[in-house]
Amino acid sequence: MPRVVVDVMPKPEILDPQGKAVLGALPRLGFSGVTDVRQGKRFELEVAGEVTDAVLDQVHQMAETLLSNPVIENFTVRVEQDA
Amino acid sequence: MPRVVVDVMPKPEILDPQGKAVLGALPRLGFSGVTDVRQGKRFELEVAGEVTDAVLDQVHQMAETLLSNPVIENFTVRVEQDA
Repeated sequence: MPRVVVDVMPKPEILDPQGKAVLGALPRLGFSGVTDVRQGKRFELEVAGEVTDAVLDQVHQMAETLLSNPVIENFTVRVEQDA
Repeated sequence: MPRVVVDVMPKPEILDPQGKAVLGALPRLGFSGVTDVRQGKRFELEVAGEVTDAVLDQVHQMAETLLSNPVIENFTVRVEQDA
């Protein structure tokens, strides 16, 4: 069954306190070499039937209205074949 | 600058109330055709220098110890070229 993935990330100019918290915790855990962390959301949508352009269009609308806040977040939609 | 992406998703056998809430909201917003939704987290890590196998190994350890809860979540690590 095809799966549509929606990635929602805070816009680059928006402060991301969750990402900053992870970034701050890494050195304390002994990790180095990471210069920035951003945390966002990932949605996996199982779609009945084929993923047509009309379906992707609908998913775009879902992402805009329900899954993300377009004022502070960007999103991407892509199709992933189920393993 | 290369970016390492860590996707963290609830394991299939684990109940996902956030995903269920989204799934329940879709028909109310006029969307149909989606049979299941799972919600997880996406981390984007900016790495200083090249992404070697040693770096990816470190990111795996970060994902295991800090970014995910291995009891209830699966994670994947992949390299993404910055746009």
